Amino acid sequence: MKNLNIKIIFQMMGFLLIFNGLFMLISALISYIYKDGATQGIFFAGIITILAGVISRFTTKNFKKKINKQEGYIIVTLGWVLMSLSGSLPYLFSESIPSFTDAFFETISGYTTTGASILDDIESMPAGILFWRSTTHWIGGMGIIVLTIAVLPLLGIGGMQLFAAEAPGPSADKLHPRITDTAKRLYLIYLGLTIAEAILLKLAGMSVFDAVNHAMSTLSTGGFSTKNASVAYWNDQPAIQYIITIFMILAGTNFVLSYFAFKGQFSKIYKDEEFKTYFLNILGISIIVGLIVYFRADVSQVATDTQLIAHPMVNGQFESALRHSFFQVASVITTTGFVSADFTIWTPFLTTLFFILMFFGASAGSTSGGVKFVRHIIMIKNGFIEFKRSMHPSAIIPVRYNEKAVSQDIVFNIMAFFILYLILFVLGALVFGIMGLDFVTSVGGSASSLGNVGPAFGQLSPVNNFNSLPAIGKWWAAFLMLLGRLELFTVLILFTPYFWRSGKF
Amino acid sequence: MKNLNIKIIFQMMGFLLIFNGLFMLISALISYIYKDGATQGIFFAGIITILAGVISRFTTKNFKKKINKQEGYIIVTLGWVLMSLSGSLPYLFSESIPSFTDAFFETISGYTTTGASILDDIESMPAGILFWRSTTHWIGGMGIIVLTIAVLPLLGIGGMQLFAAEAPGPSADKLHPRITDTAKRLYLIYLGLTIAEAILLKLAGMSVFDAVNHAMSTLSTGGFSTKNASVAYWNDQPAIQYIITIFMILAGTNFVLSYFAFKGQFSKIYKDEEFKTYFLNILGISIIVGLIVYFRADVSQVATDTQLIAHPMVNGQFESALRHSFFQVASVITTTGFVSADFTIWTPFLTTLFFILMFFGASAGSTSGGVKFVRHIIMIKNGFIEFKRSMHPSAIIPVRYNEKAVSQDIVFNIMAFFILYLILFVLGALVFGIMGLDFVTSVGGSASSLGNVGPAFGQLSPVNNFNSLPAIGKWWAAFLMLLGRLELFTVLILFTPYFWRSGKF
Ligand SMILES: [K+]
Ligand SMILES: [K+]
Repeated sequence: MKNLNIKIIFQMMGFLLIFNGLFMLISALISYIYKDGATQGIFFAGIITILAGVISRFTTKNFKKKINKQEGYIIVTLGWVLMSLSGSLPYLFSESIPSFTDAFFETISGYTTTGASILDDIESMPAGILFWRSTTHWIGGMGIIVLTIAVLPLLGIGGMQLFAAEAPGPSADKLHPRITDTAKRLYLIYLGLTIAEAILLKLAGMSVFDAVNHAMSTLSTGGFSTKNASVAYWNDQPAIQYIITIFMILAGTNFVLSYFAFKGQFSKIYKDEEFKTYFLNILGISIIVGLIVYFRADVSQVATDTQLIAHPMVNGQFESALRHSFFQVASVITTTGFVSADFTIWTPFLTTLFFILMFFGASAGSTSGGVKFVRHIIMIKNGFIEFKRSMHPSAIIPVRYNEKAVSQDIVFNIMAFFILYLILFVLGALVFGIMGLDFVTSVGGSASSLGNVGPAFGQLSPVNNFNSLPAIGKWWAAFLMLLGRLELFTVLILFTPYFWRSGKF
Repeated sequence: MKNLNIKIIFQMMGFLLIFNGLFMLISALISYIYKDGATQGIFFAGIITILAGVISRFTTKNFKKKINKQEGYIIVTLGWVLMSLSGSLPYLFSESIPSFTDAFFETISGYTTTGASILDDIESMPAGILFWRSTTHWIGGMGIIVLTIAVLPLLGIGGMQLFAAEAPGPSADKLHPRITDTAKRLYLIYLGLTIAEAILLKLAGMSVFDAVNHAMSTLSTGGFSTKNASVAYWNDQPAIQYIITIFMILAGTNFVLSYFAFKGQFSKIYKDEEFKTYFLNILGISIIVGLIVYFRADVSQVATDTQLIAHPMVNGQFESALRHSFFQVASVITTTGFVSADFTIWTPFLTTLFFILMFFGASAGSTSGGVKFVRHIIMIKNGFIEFKRSMHPSAIIPVRYNEKAVSQDIVFNIMAFFILYLILFVLGALVFGIMGLDFVTSVGGSASSLGNVGPAFGQLSPVNNFNSLPAIGKWWAAFLMLLGRLELFTVLILFTPYFWRSGKF
């Protein structure tokens, strides 16, 4: 641990705390406007968080600006944990979620944009608290953008180098210029899309409050809703569901591509292999699912006898089947996790299919979690090439992606990432199993937590929530969410002896 | 397809058919001795198979002895399919399994040493047919030994090069000397262990017939039993179950190591990383499972209200829990698939655990199917090293296995194999799902078929069988078994355009 620049870590943490605290004050303002009774609690949470941040920065004023990989890893993981710890204060201080375990779970589920909830009655929550809940998603999404653009490629994690090469802005290898220039551009897109969706949702009939909250949850692929039934609350307003579906797909698209689209450079989008594959998969799978639902299932089925989800067939059964299929396929592939229908009981085949979709993930450079298409594309291409290679062992045949040869090192990185992902999925399911959860709940819960999806299967199905987990299960799910969100290596490396042994690297 | 040496393919197929036919005649003899009424059918099947083989060889007498990779691939896959086609004749001719789909399923399940059965009443089958059924396992096991030693390493599949370096006998790269010398040594071990187990089982109280059949099913890690209840039939004779457990573990051990043990070179065994990991995993997992069963479950539970499985606690409940746990853990890890208790309903956690065990596989160079320990070891070691590498990107840090550095190419090969394995597992489950099977049955059936285990979960649990699958499902399961048994690439490469395009390679 020699040479570790602890002061810059404190500086960064201080910055994050102040940033977080300011957002809490906005929530306090919302709470004040809605007179929901939670204003004082949220306000104090914000003040304390800002104070902690100011103290953290003030006491480490004379810091060296030099930052290395080791500090980078610590800042990322510690940052997410500290955000989640401070972010749970509004829940605790307002007593809307009195248990620390529950408050922390809800908060980390927010920042990791997972959207799994422990709230049994969302609609009874104060408005300011619901707004804070959506804000944790939105901040988490911002965090992911800067992580993908500026941090992960430098750390060489899971093939993220591939993506970084495509990002706009200065291509220098240093953290600073990239954060300020590239991230700023992408944040504008992120903010712009959020505002656009909120306006459209308002026009389609949502209240301003619901519209803003759902827009924040969509662009971050988070999935927290202000309603107990999630988006199924608006099942009688198909326009709302179409808008959300489109914005989920946008949220799962590389923000760099959206930036190019904004600049009018549409050719970049047509040419992008990941976007094409991602988009065609959503389209194709949705149509298949839609037809199966239409002919074999009933979207109005729900696993329990709850009356949460109503399914009026506003435009007939066919449109309803197709709409819910598009919505749910996009929701799971983009790892948003909004719910318009209980897809886990449509048909046995669709249960299997949706379980597999949990391992898809959308695009790199989006806010989505999961494995992501770029990795699948490269692994599948490499699989085919392996056959070629086994017949021509002396020939060097690289995988090609977006018309460029991908270095063997990156392919290797990606495969190692995927295998680690699966090992953690298996471990995740095993630990849930040890806690007494049944097979379907265990594997579904593990896949959903690690992929930052939200709803899962069995006891954690879309019409249930994560509150039925034992306390230890909530902590385990929280850990899996963090692992998945930070691309596994970023967190796990902190547990290796190498990390702490080597001073410089 | 230019330059393809078709004649040598016919020569090899002829050899296999004659070999297969001779074994059928042995089964006919058994049938004659037991006067089971199936003698004529089995005898004619044998004669026809031998005739076909003789004709195949006779018409291609003037063949060139040169054999290349392309012909190697064709011979392996075609060989297994042809064995399964001809091997189904005894069932068809004796009318003990009149449906071709069923007969083919039972036969390929035999040769791939999977042991999944479509027979609802095994005990009503003629003795000669039961013997033939076990024989298909035993021949399949022989096939795998020669495949691992002589063919796969040359084809460079899934890291099998690693293993080949350890095999005894001449290390020349040509097919011929290896087959004759190394394989002969290992066949003697295989035969010797089979005889030893049969004698021990007889001494422990089995009939000679049951003892021989179970010994053949054990050493091949096949799992066909002569009893409807599988090995649970002898639940009142713990000695029988201990013997089978030990021989399952031996069957899952690299036969090269058993050869060294036979030669007195025990140090090779202690030093072998794969054997140590494999053995300690069986031991450790069995103890954990045993304790869970003892404290939380009841080995006498069964999924359906069938009376197939009796569970007398001969030596008390603790011994019973531990014995069945050892038996079932060894049975699934070695991919044998014998059943002493319905492990799928012990506890929810154990269901999850046993599902994961389906992906273990035992040792390379054994008759076991699945992924196998050597691959898991190398992938896990590589995973740890990835962390090191990400901190020291310029350093070259190889994976070490059995005290030697493993080339990056082999690690790459192994990862590609594993990813392909998982893709096929997912595809397998999806297709089962499309046929209307539920989630648990689909994923369990796919994992079990691909891993050549046998029993699965849900509708395919140890107390059920594969007869409840629709016909198309039986064919799909058969295909998965073949894929898994032949290490995926060997079969799939035949479906690539490269394979048929390139004349020489
Ligand atoms: K989510
Ligand atoms: K088997």
